Amino acid sequence: MKPTIDFWFDFASSYSYPAAMRIDELAEQSGVKVNWRPFLLGPIFVGQGWRDSPFNLYPLKGRYMWRDLERICARESLPLRRPEPFPQNSLLAARCAMAIDPADRPAFAKAIFAAEFGEGDGIDDRATIARALAAVGLTEEPLARAKTDAIKQALRAETDEAKRLELFGAPSFVTQDGELFWGNDRLQDAIAWAVRRWI
Amino acid sequence: MKPTIDFWFDFASSYSYPAAMRIDELAEQSGVKVNWRPFLLGPIFVGQGWRDSPFNLYPLKGRYMWRDLERICARESLPLRRPEPFPQNSLLAARCAMAIDPADRPAFAKAIFAAEFGEGDGIDDRATIARALAAVGLTEEPLARAKTDAIKQALRAETDEAKRLELFGAPSFVTQDGELFWGNDRLQDAIAWAVRRWI
Repeated sequence: MKPTIDFWFDFASSYSYPAAMRIDELAEQSGVKVNWRPFLLGPIFVGQGWRDSPFNLYPLKGRYMWRDLERICARESLPLRRPEPFPQNSLLAARCAMAIDPADRPAFAKAIFAAEFGEGDGIDDRATIARALAAVGLTEEPLARAKTDAIKQALRAETDEAKRLELFGAPSFVTQDGELFWGNDRLQDAIAWAVRRWI
Repeated sequence: MKPTIDFWFDFASSYSYPAAMRIDELAEQSGVKVNWRPFLLGPIFVGQGWRDSPFNLYPLKGRYMWRDLERICARESLPLRRPEPFPQNSLLAARCAMAIDPADRPAFAKAIFAAEFGEGDGIDDRATIARALAAVGLTEEPLARAKTDAIKQALRAETDEAKRLELFGAPSFVTQDGELFWGNDRLQDAIAWAVRRWI
């Protein structure tokens, strides 16, 4: 048993990219276990009356986000190439993440994020997903299983759980005692909280 | 001449409170000059289709903000008491800030923020503003001058400048080379940027 944070992310979420690329190292330094939990922001945004990313609905905020992400990626030495269109449709990638062994999920997710925001690749493209699976030593079998009812239902259940937790954006972090932190810039705070509240 | 950041704030903005209470000390440690620039977010929110604070329009986000602000204030040893209603009408306080000498503006602004978010006082109440003026050694004369066309126009010009700078929220920080940082959590980044880009 260790202090734990649930890392809730949507593959379409731009700020989830730098969070995904550094969370494991930061958490390990603090002895914190990370559960990688993909979900879909779309249904949650619809609940807020948004049919598109707020970064598209509010162009000033969108322009700022891309500049802010440039600065963050420069600081973290992460490549950044904006995928077109933004946001990407993350449904297939999220279902694939559910279809693989949870132990492989972090490496797969990082490969998807690196393709999408590091290379600008489309992640609704089966070829992109197949390359990510291959990069972490997996076959294409999860791509087929992604279409089964069991996997569709598993992802729906995760998105329902995200709603129950009152998540409204990504990335979000929830510590073992239920404290919610939202945004890449709250990652270190979430880890510190998990450690402090560990008995 | 020193590296400089413009600190754009709305007295109604919750996250502007912790930013206001620590910006001078942080900036001084780095040799950065701060220009305190009050403006009104209302007209900018209206431009985004919002007739209320996004923290009221999106209740999940609002609930999270108050919890997040609790954590931030605990860390900074700042008292926190939610003003009712939220957001407060910040027009009179902002006009008073424009009516006083810029050298007195930081102390006056901190007194207003401390009353509003530390004590829960209404800042559209002339008595609250008079107490803030007295606390920094000023008479009530700015309260009278706040209603003149010159002061109304001065605040309008600042809000127009905020629009021209494409600000969409508060607090915002703009460095001497025009780089925009949004949010209390970007304060240190803004200061570091101003220093790094100083020639």
